Amino acid sequence: LIAPLPITFLSDYGHDDEFAGVCRAVIVGIAPEARLIDLTHGIRPEAIREGGAVLAKALPYAPAGVHLAVVDPGVGGERRGVAARAASGRLLVGPDNGLLTPALARFGGAAEAVDLAASPFRLAPVSVTFHGRDVFAPVAARLALGAELADAGTAIDPSSLVELEPLVPRIDAGSVTAHVTQVDRFGNAALDLRAERAGELPFGRGDALRVAASGGGAEADAAFETTFASVEPGRMLLYEDSYGNLALAVNLGSAAELLDVAAGDAIVLRPAGR
Amino acid sequence: LIAPLPITFLSDYGHDDEFAGVCRAVIVGIAPEARLIDLTHGIRPEAIREGGAVLAKALPYAPAGVHLAVVDPGVGGERRGVAARAASGRLLVGPDNGLLTPALARFGGAAEAVDLAASPFRLAPVSVTFHGRDVFAPVAARLALGAELADAGTAIDPSSLVELEPLVPRIDAGSVTAHVTQVDRFGNAALDLRAERAGELPFGRGDALRVAASGGGAEADAAFETTFASVEPGRMLLYEDSYGNLALAVNLGSAAELLDVAAGDAIVLRPAGR
Amino acid sequence: LIAPLPITFLSDYGHDDEFAGVCRAVIVGIAPEARLIDLTHGIRPEAIREGGAVLAKALPYAPAGVHLAVVDPGVGGERRGVAARAASGRLLVGPDNGLLTPALARFGGAAEAVDLAASPFRLAPVSVTFHGRDVFAPVAARLALGAELADAGTAIDPSSLVELEPLVPRIDAGSVTAHVTQVDRFGNAALDLRAERAGELPFGRGDALRVAASGGGAEADAAFETTFASVEPGRMLLYEDSYGNLALAVNLGSAAELLDVAAGDAIVLRPAGR
Repeated sequence: LIAPLPITFLSDYGHDDEFAGVCRAVIVGIAPEARLIDLTHGIRPEAIREGGAVLAKALPYAPAGVHLAVVDPGVGGERRGVAARAASGRLLVGPDNGLLTPALARFGGAAEAVDLAASPFRLAPVSVTFHGRDVFAPVAARLALGAELADAGTAIDPSSLVELEPLVPRIDAGSVTAHVTQVDRFGNAALDLRAERAGELPFGRGDALRVAASGGGAEADAAFETTFASVEPGRMLLYEDSYGNLALAVNLGSAAELLDVAAGDAIVLRPAGR
Repeated sequence: LIAPLPITFLSDYGHDDEFAGVCRAVIVGIAPEARLIDLTHGIRPEAIREGGAVLAKALPYAPAGVHLAVVDPGVGGERRGVAARAASGRLLVGPDNGLLTPALARFGGAAEAVDLAASPFRLAPVSVTFHGRDVFAPVAARLALGAELADAGTAIDPSSLVELEPLVPRIDAGSVTAHVTQVDRFGNAALDLRAERAGELPFGRGDALRVAASGGGAEADAAFETTFASVEPGRMLLYEDSYGNLALAVNLGSAAELLDVAAGDAIVLRPAGR
Repeated sequence: LIAPLPITFLSDYGHDDEFAGVCRAVIVGIAPEARLIDLTHGIRPEAIREGGAVLAKALPYAPAGVHLAVVDPGVGGERRGVAARAASGRLLVGPDNGLLTPALARFGGAAEAVDLAASPFRLAPVSVTFHGRDVFAPVAARLALGAELADAGTAIDPSSLVELEPLVPRIDAGSVTAHVTQVDRFGNAALDLRAERAGELPFGRGDALRVAASGGGAEADAAFETTFASVEPGRMLLYEDSYGNLALAVNLGSAAELLDVAAGDAIVLRPAGR
């Protein structure tokens, strides 16, 4: 007897409705011994790109197992439901709309994938609008119990999984244009700019910056610092966040509010005085 | 040694306060091996009818066990605290204010019930305002460990459990009046109209509809369709939701916002042009 | 083989971001058998005093074990990260900013404490801004597995743990000034006044009161009663809450809204007519 794999669960179901709870109930009914870890259900409704970014940065901290993710505006339409094994062995389950591919890439890319349209693990009947409950949760639970991925659905080419066109930050001689990937509860705005690339930027640690929401939005001064406390309360800083991305924060305040930006928005950073 | 029963937990405690967490702590202290499944704590404060509807539709997806539910505006007053066994064996625990009876009905009705006013399983002392912690959670935990229902309190007539007068949809020759039972995060408004009754309605699948909040409220056009994508973004549809109820949605929008309705409100649906 | 200790978890991480979920993932990765109880993650951002009050009142209902708490506005700065054993044996883990000391006091005070700055249980690398994930969660998980507190960090004087200056209610001949320690979902405002002290107050049970937010704020009449139903809907009462504190509530309404107060605000209570 082998212990079941742990299951992580991320979605845009929110916490007020019973959606996430009903999926949990389905999982426990099938795999009562599997450890279930709610990563978050607070992804903004239908925000596939944001959900994919959060999943990809959270999973390296989770034990290897089955990783269920549901942000699924296309449910009941043409998009496939899939389960995939990453090269490193992790199993991901969810809609094939770009949500899973950033996390798969972190684990070596998809090595094997199946379409769940006719999965024998589905509940019956399958509803048109709640595949989290009827398809993805039971598939995740059966995989956690040790079912073979090949038995969960119909084999598909793993390279056919949908990838969203990545937003690419642009580094110019006098400015950097990056995108907000997530705004957290504290108003910190993570950017799609890895801290390792700091050497390529037209400014360095300790420098004063001018930061603007793209397209004529709000502007503010900032400093490129290490800790929040390096700047006065109410002042903005660019820093390396806990996942190794550059991010904007305001000491004892909200960068997202100061700049009036949300996930997906573009930001322009310039050395101060230019 | 028998494995303890799983415990599901639904309430209006919200997620910001420690109420649900303290109940979880009490349960784990008594039944450390019992699997605990949070269905939701986001029922609107004191919304007994909404809580009862959500519980009744969620529980068929949960493994049989102990089902704790607390939406309890009358705590400390005259209402009874009860535990009941449904004909099918499931155990429900909560206030006797109509919250539990819709779920009991789904499982064959209450076959046995006890009043918890003098339950030996209560914590001591019992507070006036937090029976979730002091009465319902410890009773649920003891039942999960295998305690007899008869030992949890004083036997009462199971037919004496409070039932809320059901809201009844009215189907006329030219219109249907139904009630919103729940509004979810996506703005979808579930109605108290089972999809099996579609044949009785004065309109059919594919038809154009006019939908109005009752009492001179907002109005909008809709279509009776199967999937969100059957209508243009921003347009409303009547569809069968994932629990077999008819519901209103707006493709990539919010039906509840468009009609300005909440759970409990009445809705009038008519064939378009009448 | 000993069963791991249960772990409770309280924070201001909210439920929309992945912060609490990533900490859960780290804990399960290290201690897959440990029972994990989320108390709440809804403490208002950076509200150390409120978090400490909620932790101290919740923990007596939780089984003894490891108690992880993170409200940490000073993360990455000078404040210490600590783990401490209370005289009664409970283990607390979190920032040394006053968050843990009210709970430690409930359990007999800190008997042993360690600084986690160089803890061998930390993840590597340790980020500047997310010690919940990198320091506190892994330390809590290792302690739950039975690691010695002395092995978790560098011994420090347990009496050196930071205590916030307590807000002290003032009882005068004609009035009482108390402070709101928490506002809950139902708008009830808990005060820093234990019910045992009712005999010292210039009014008694059944009396009519005048209640005002300090500093010229909103005012309202209230009665000193036992149950919400003792007053008319919409009327305020002073009552003993479920933790033995005096609190203000409005029957079927919100005391916090009526008085326009939040946690930390001062409240003046007087016998009516004075």
